[in-house]
Amino acid sequence: MDTLTRLEQTIAQRASASPDSSYVAKLNAKGIETIAKKLGEEATETVIAALVQGADELIGESADLLFHLLVLLQARGVSVEQVMAELDRREGVSGLAEKASRSE
Amino acid sequence: MDTLTRLEQTIAQRASASPDSSYVAKLNAKGIETIAKKLGEEATETVIAALVQGADELIGESADLLFHLLVLLQARGVSVEQVMAELDRREGVSGLAEKASRSE
Amino acid sequence: MDTLTRLEQTIAQRASASPDSSYVAKLNAKGIETIAKKLGEEATETVIAALVQGADELIGESADLLFHLLVLLQARGVSVEQVMAELDRREGVSGLAEKASRSE
Amino acid sequence: MDTLTRLEQTIAQRASASPDSSYVAKLNAKGIETIAKKLGEEATETVIAALVQGADELIGESADLLFHLLVLLQARGVSVEQVMAELDRREGVSGLAEKASRSE
Repeated sequence: MDTLTRLEQTIAQRASASPDSSYVAKLNAKGIETIAKKLGEEATETVIAALVQGADELIGESADLLFHLLVLLQARGVSVEQVMAELDRREGVSGLAEKASRSE
Repeated sequence: MDTLTRLEQTIAQRASASPDSSYVAKLNAKGIETIAKKLGEEATETVIAALVQGADELIGESADLLFHLLVLLQARGVSVEQVMAELDRREGVSGLAEKASRSE
Repeated sequence: MDTLTRLEQTIAQRASASPDSSYVAKLNAKGIETIAKKLGEEATETVIAALVQGADELIGESADLLFHLLVLLQARGVSVEQVMAELDRREGVSGLAEKASRSE
Repeated sequence: MDTLTRLEQTIAQRASASPDSSYVAKLNAKGIETIAKKLGEEATETVIAALVQGADELIGESADLLFHLLVLLQARGVSVEQVMAELDRREGVSGLAEKASRSE
């Protein structure tokens, strides 16, 4: 299983935990506005890291951004798979793969 | 191969294309500031979609956000794998894997 | 009359113009989500200018940010005066706090 | 004196205070990246307030945004007056005023 799908499962499990013991549960208890705000913050930090910081900081901020994006998607009932399917669709890769599997 | 790794390869190929024929090449020709700006824009649009729009819009904006994050990482020489490794490390997954390989 | 109050009046006048002839009218016709998105974009551009560009770019982006903030406030029925009153109130409070600590 | 000019003076005074006693001094001690990050955060909060919160929240977040914009400008050596002059220039108001005074 790839990293984002595994992380999505972990986030789903933690969402129902106690807000005292889990950061994800705490974010969900505060609501979608707080989660959206965190996404905005991490995006700004990713921008700053990309412009004036090192690769390690950029990796760390990108990880933060992806983590909070997954929390946001989960809170709105959207799966990582749906977003990946949209990226595949745009690239036309899924269409080509379908064609290839049909011709086998 | 998972979607983001495949997309990363597509972006790397397009980066060296003509700015006239490729959006990725055009972004790279404009430089890191323009790419970072686009990431910030897509993050704001994801926030807005999460708060007041439907699931389809949220999926579309999240796809845009991921796409531009990958363009930004590529422009700074950071791989998707490095960001995923950081997410794995945080979740303790890579640590457990290391433990398992040591006990073999 | 100060700049922001005058600009607020100009924005109010333009809001009711034809979307074809006025940028403000066009933004208002598109709705609060488009205006909010523009504010987010200008904030990212201000961040980028502050970090890696010159004073002229920072001045320009700050002006863009203020302009779109005023369009957003107008669209929500909030006046510049209300925001200034809030800043005055806070400064009065922090000033009093400082005074109080000095008199201890 | 208008609110922003007075606030600019207060921020300039506090910038040289001890980071322990002043929020502005603390931000300046942390550096331009931290100040820029705060501006990004406040912009996201202003977007959220504009979309899904009440007028009071929008006023409060707009005040936060302006406050941190002034801290950022001060850290980069840009004055509020320079930004207002740019807004005046764009509106053509200062140009018309000059014309009027010349024709007197």
